[in-house]
Amino acid sequence: MNSQPQLPARAKVRVDLGERSYDIAFYWDEAEALARDVAPWCPEGAFIVSNPTIWQLYGARLEAALSAAGVRTVVELIGDGERFKTLETAAQLYDRLIAERFTRRACIVAFGGGVVGDLAGFVAATFLRGVNFIQIPTTVVAMVDSAVGGKTGVDHPRGKNLIGAFWQPRLVAVDLAWFRTLDRHNLHGGFAEVIKYGMIADAEFFAWLEKHIGEALALEPDPLRHVVRRSCEIKAQVVGADEREAGLRAILNYGHTFAHAIESAAAYRERQFHGQAVAIGMVAAAETALRLGMFSREEAERQRALIERAGLPTQIPEGLTAGELLDRMRSDKKVIGGRLRFVLPEAIGRVTIRDDVPEDMVIDVLSALGAQQ
Amino acid sequence: MNSQPQLPARAKVRVDLGERSYDIAFYWDEAEALARDVAPWCPEGAFIVSNPTIWQLYGARLEAALSAAGVRTVVELIGDGERFKTLETAAQLYDRLIAERFTRRACIVAFGGGVVGDLAGFVAATFLRGVNFIQIPTTVVAMVDSAVGGKTGVDHPRGKNLIGAFWQPRLVAVDLAWFRTLDRHNLHGGFAEVIKYGMIADAEFFAWLEKHIGEALALEPDPLRHVVRRSCEIKAQVVGADEREAGLRAILNYGHTFAHAIESAAAYRERQFHGQAVAIGMVAAAETALRLGMFSREEAERQRALIERAGLPTQIPEGLTAGELLDRMRSDKKVIGGRLRFVLPEAIGRVTIRDDVPEDMVIDVLSALGAQQ
Repeated sequence: MNSQPQLPARAKVRVDLGERSYDIAFYWDEAEALARDVAPWCPEGAFIVSNPTIWQLYGARLEAALSAAGVRTVVELIGDGERFKTLETAAQLYDRLIAERFTRRACIVAFGGGVVGDLAGFVAATFLRGVNFIQIPTTVVAMVDSAVGGKTGVDHPRGKNLIGAFWQPRLVAVDLAWFRTLDRHNLHGGFAEVIKYGMIADAEFFAWLEKHIGEALALEPDPLRHVVRRSCEIKAQVVGADEREAGLRAILNYGHTFAHAIESAAAYRERQFHGQAVAIGMVAAAETALRLGMFSREEAERQRALIERAGLPTQIPEGLTAGELLDRMRSDKKVIGGRLRFVLPEAIGRVTIRDDVPEDMVIDVLSALGAQQ
Repeated sequence: MNSQPQLPARAKVRVDLGERSYDIAFYWDEAEALARDVAPWCPEGAFIVSNPTIWQLYGARLEAALSAAGVRTVVELIGDGERFKTLETAAQLYDRLIAERFTRRACIVAFGGGVVGDLAGFVAATFLRGVNFIQIPTTVVAMVDSAVGGKTGVDHPRGKNLIGAFWQPRLVAVDLAWFRTLDRHNLHGGFAEVIKYGMIADAEFFAWLEKHIGEALALEPDPLRHVVRRSCEIKAQVVGADEREAGLRAILNYGHTFAHAIESAAAYRERQFHGQAVAIGMVAAAETALRLGMFSREEAERQRALIERAGLPTQIPEGLTAGELLDRMRSDKKVIGGRLRFVLPEAIGRVTIRDDVPEDMVIDVLSALGAQQ
């Protein structure tokens, strides 16, 4: 059990998107304060979307806190896992919203991880052409990644997030104490995204992680808060500069071209492996950059060492072939004009986008990381 | 057969929405010029959504013109009528888009009336979180109403347009010569919206209609062009001032609170009756304003006379009761905080929003227009 942290009450990060700006607010075991901040967005109640696992842990407390703040609650639990992130589940939520007579002043609250957030956000974007949306993420990945940025969506049998919308939340409310019940695998996976933020934008944060990642992984409140806050700040800055993914925002995909191929080839349809795949993808990106002569061996080793200290893999899982992974990359929706695009490091804290990586070099990198021929 | 009109080539109305601004371009029997203007938005081809009726009339010519402009076409025909405007039909379009390997550079072209436009627009808003969208409307209602404004959506068994998004087209391309095959009922219905624009925003346009509506209904090119162009201009101005329907845009619903109740009670699930219901709704709004002492009998009579000259009804269809219509109004999604809201005329060319109309006055007005007790 951790000691009570020395957090300033209501620490916030502002995501600056003009009239769609919003706050990310941090709490520590403070459901009541969180509920009071949520309340003003819910004039006709909160339509809470969650899953049975998280609801069992924290549902009663959240509901009681919202009720004390004067907010009526309607709760819709959806199945746990990526396979429930479908248009059919969205239709189930529309039905319930309509049955409960919510109007354009409805507020949809996502309480859970990325699946809940993506799906509830899509329904918020499309119910009556858009209603209030609040994210209360409960996993590290959801906190540092999917809860910030306004991407919502559901999957199609042919691919992830093929149906979706950009829709910004009114508030992201993060209670860091809820990490205490997160399993280690999920926690570590979240730290892959954290390391990514250091690599793409902040060498100082990367160096801080080299010193303190152990404390953050041990859920010491102050280091943990710094990790989540700084990751959210970096993502917020990138998203603020490029809300609809026209350019800069692509750097958030550092490690992801490789990662998506690995996830897809390994048929990891649950997102439990996403952070782990991103970790391998970052190692692959660094190896590619090394071969292109744009990145140093020393910095590549620093990245690998930090990834390993976060309990994350650096080798491609057994049984995948380099050719198959390359095929998966080619069918990724980010392929434009038939050219593979990679976000590659120039230095720790700085990346660039390249679409001129020779395919035989990609095969070579994949093989070096353990893919079969 | 009408004579060739004296139109300036490529007459345009600009819809000013900042970075989402777009043009409404007018043509007269010029599929080739239209296709050349569409082409730049379709780098990987045009995904055309249409229905069998319109496609049979004009599909071959549009396809040939696009092909001559260097645009490959993929055509998906959907059933004709409101009952096909569903999430299931949207899913059919997603499947086809994916099967044809469209990417984020896809362009979805709606070629038809309001059902095609609303549905194709919703798919454009949500495929890969939003792709290019072009409207080629072929009915008067679609041209003066649904093609301008960015509202997209599908129906839910419990109500129309309950699922949707705001998504602006890149271009609205209108070939006025295509009206020549429109049936008279549909043509007249479209003119209800035209009269509405005069009533809500432009007394001079209303007076012009009093002189020239016969010529426009006879599809004389210059009067017809003036009608469509001025209607689009007024709608574009209102939408430009209030893209997301926070305030001003509500005046576009003049006549619609009554109209939606009539359509819903009469179970006119097809939109063929929409314009006719709006005509009755405008008469009801004027009668309400008269009783509130805010509108003159003389102007109410001018509106009624113009509606009748457009071949539109002014009496509620037989078999509907005032009480049932009032119930339908109460369950409309625009009811906020339990109060009915009406857009009421103060003078020809000027309306205001009132939420303080006594319900017994509504009953009285409905009865005066032929509703049963």
